[in-house]
Amino acid sequence: MRPTVTEQQPLFLGIDGGGSKCRVLLMSAQGQVLGEGLSGPANPLRGMQLATASILDATSQALNSAGLPATVMSELVVGAGLAGVNLPEYYQLVSSWQHPFASLHLTSDLHIACIGAHQGNDGAVLICGTGSCGLAAVNGQLLEVGGHGFPYGDNGSGAWFGLQVVQQVLRSKDQLTAPTLLTGLLQAELQCSASLQLVSHFMQASPTDYARLAPLVFTAAEQGDAAAQSIIDTGAAYINEIAERLLTINPVALCLIGGLAYKVEPYLSAAVRNKVVPAAQPPEFGAIWFAQQAIANSGKTGTTA
Amino acid sequence: MRPTVTEQQPLFLGIDGGGSKCRVLLMSAQGQVLGEGLSGPANPLRGMQLATASILDATSQALNSAGLPATVMSELVVGAGLAGVNLPEYYQLVSSWQHPFASLHLTSDLHIACIGAHQGNDGAVLICGTGSCGLAAVNGQLLEVGGHGFPYGDNGSGAWFGLQVVQQVLRSKDQLTAPTLLTGLLQAELQCSASLQLVSHFMQASPTDYARLAPLVFTAAEQGDAAAQSIIDTGAAYINEIAERLLTINPVALCLIGGLAYKVEPYLSAAVRNKVVPAAQPPEFGAIWFAQQAIANSGKTGTTA
Repeated sequence: MRPTVTEQQPLFLGIDGGGSKCRVLLMSAQGQVLGEGLSGPANPLRGMQLATASILDATSQALNSAGLPATVMSELVVGAGLAGVNLPEYYQLVSSWQHPFASLHLTSDLHIACIGAHQGNDGAVLICGTGSCGLAAVNGQLLEVGGHGFPYGDNGSGAWFGLQVVQQVLRSKDQLTAPTLLTGLLQAELQCSASLQLVSHFMQASPTDYARLAPLVFTAAEQGDAAAQSIIDTGAAYINEIAERLLTINPVALCLIGGLAYKVEPYLSAAVRNKVVPAAQPPEFGAIWFAQQAIANSGKTGTTA
Repeated sequence: MRPTVTEQQPLFLGIDGGGSKCRVLLMSAQGQVLGEGLSGPANPLRGMQLATASILDATSQALNSAGLPATVMSELVVGAGLAGVNLPEYYQLVSSWQHPFASLHLTSDLHIACIGAHQGNDGAVLICGTGSCGLAAVNGQLLEVGGHGFPYGDNGSGAWFGLQVVQQVLRSKDQLTAPTLLTGLLQAELQCSASLQLVSHFMQASPTDYARLAPLVFTAAEQGDAAAQSIIDTGAAYINEIAERLLTINPVALCLIGGLAYKVEPYLSAAVRNKVVPAAQPPEFGAIWFAQQAIANSGKTGTTA
């Protein structure tokens, strides 16, 4: 009988499973990238059937791109960071999945982003993209802040910035406040000017729809718009309070991640900016390190989450 | 052939059609209330089939309670104020309805609320309930302010107040701000304390779900909570700016309507409070006056919207 890959030299698979896509990375025990895969949503909140189908699809792609047969799937040591598994019921749900891998080590997408950003070391990440949230990992302690969802949470996120634009412009159209550059920019962006037409764009708007408008705030502020500057000051203060909270457990460094991160960074406090370092590696690498650490801690390769 | 009721002494039906229910009132030409009806949603944005079914259901109830046969429906002169018909496409949609009445005179629910509140005279109304909006009617000029929807509009509404509570409490649970009385009140209201459990109540929350929390802000403020007082100050300032805008066209008086109106009134400016009078009649009466005015203006009883 042929010795399995895992017994000789385990193959590692890192999964970054988010609400819109699933990225996987196949790596040798020596750290060599062998293959990659990309598929659809892998957030169990959107259904386990879809999530597991996305994971298996991306995994097959990665094996295929590495020139390995599909049967190798059963020998993979897998680390997975999935959106939603910070909710205990979804952690349980994914843990009970009869997966086809040698082992599956499960944590949140935020956690693997942090591990990847700091190359497996302790540290903190603050994500400012469509949503906003942060995580600090120090000596086994995990501190998670924000990320509760829009519109009741995710303050200072792209969705939050976009919502402020729509609110501000509707108030200006009602002549409750003076129109500013934001009014013209939003009308140009949506190619309409009447309040009723503007509103029709947002009656069923998703956080992503709002987040698309966030750049308008920075454009207007760069042209001297005081209303836009006020929105930035408020939003950056929200992001800054998440960062300051993460620093209370003394992470060595903080990585800012997400489409708005570099826009907001100049507005953060000196204490926060002094901790900022670039992210070393993407979350899929973090997922693999997470699996490797889990194995090192348990002393064997076959544990299942 | 028997002369119709309309030819001899028209019967009037007033319809107040909102997003959750439809109220109708049947009145004689002499102003005597003959019957009433109450049914489900009559907002054409939620579907014409549902809206017309609700209208016909409530109308049948009113005829029945007046001891009149269903055949009298074809002789009714109807005034209808429907949510959503401020949007031109929905005004057109309802206008093209092959209704069973003698005539249908159509306007918005906000307009009939104003006409009812001022007993058919000019004036202004400001609604502060689940949503927030205002309308002033002066010499044929209609000024409509706010009411664009939640969360991008409806500032200072019940839904807005509730959202502020959830935001504030989640920030306190993340230790981004100190907990206040609002934290305990919300936890007691929802009978849970962890952020994840709180969030699970709001992932699909409607404006009505948020508006249910608005009273907590006033309870906390009455007990001296500074965070709650700050939310009230901001919300009342939004309501006040709607009121001040309505006053720019010089309505004789302003009626405050909706579940939060009396809570917010003490915080409004003196200029606004000096204009406030109690609402004389409910919107269904306003709908009948609207129909009667339309007939008087056109000089006949048979015009159809």
